Amino acid sequence: MTVTEEFLRNNETYAAGFSGPLPLPPSKHIAIVACMDARLDVYRALGIEEGQAHVIRNAGGAVTDDVIRSLTISQRLLGTTEIVLVHHTDCGMLTFTDDEFTRAVQDDTGIRPAWAPESFRDPHEDVRQSLRRIETSPFVTKTTSLRGFVFDVASGELEETVPAA
Amino acid sequence: MTVTEEFLRNNETYAAGFSGPLPLPPSKHIAIVACMDARLDVYRALGIEEGQAHVIRNAGGAVTDDVIRSLTISQRLLGTTEIVLVHHTDCGMLTFTDDEFTRAVQDDTGIRPAWAPESFRDPHEDVRQSLRRIETSPFVTKTTSLRGFVFDVASGELEETVPAA
Repeated sequence: MTVTEEFLRNNETYAAGFSGPLPLPPSKHIAIVACMDARLDVYRALGIEEGQAHVIRNAGGAVTDDVIRSLTISQRLLGTTEIVLVHHTDCGMLTFTDDEFTRAVQDDTGIRPAWAPESFRDPHEDVRQSLRRIETSPFVTKTTSLRGFVFDVASGELEETVPAA
Repeated sequence: MTVTEEFLRNNETYAAGFSGPLPLPPSKHIAIVACMDARLDVYRALGIEEGQAHVIRNAGGAVTDDVIRSLTISQRLLGTTEIVLVHHTDCGMLTFTDDEFTRAVQDDTGIRPAWAPESFRDPHEDVRQSLRRIETSPFVTKTTSLRGFVFDVASGELEETVPAA
């Protein structure tokens, strides 16, 4: 049995106890941008209930153009105004450099990716520059609160990143 | 009190009961690509425990270059091999066209986004073309299982998308 099949069986149990539907716009008017890391269950870690928050996730929690796209849609069409960024300790993005990764992919596939892998050396520093990417985006214009945090995978705690002066 | 502050208080409760750390690589060797929709709690809907699966999310669950970046890192560095795509009913991406959205952003900000908003008209059709984007990516090369689903926000059930012939 694949893991996919195992998860589909889990979904049958979930659906049996499901009470929907909820409204489309997030009831708490907030969007979370977090790393895809398996250990970070964003809903549980922040106490989010279904229907309350948009959750955007990718490798590193990087604020890429795709995250700007998602935040633009979230704010303009679905009324979110707060944004929370979550990076974390022991992140896979700390274990390589962009040059190394791009070289390995090219060696293996014959093609150099046109995208930056978005590795980083310090989670707080990367949260800081991610906050700046959002602050300087011309498209994310409805923000009333923007804060960034590093989730500690050992303790489950969030430590806030001090923004650049 | 902002919602961010409310979520930070929730995190204190979460951390108090936290037992970590878990290993970095997803123990179930699987990555989920899902829409950012607030009503879709991916961990609960699929019965995922912390540490088991990468969870990648954006507006629509679109397989953008950023998702390819995340999947490439997930497979090459962290050993995932299965992929599950999850779109859903009543999606915000069904409520506008790319032209309308781009025009509205340009009218409002004076700038036309260089990215496609990635709206779609039918969730299953969009899952189908998303599956194809992954199948044809030169960088996502370790896949042993690739399946796509539409989550029903009224029932909590997943309906599988039949791939293109």
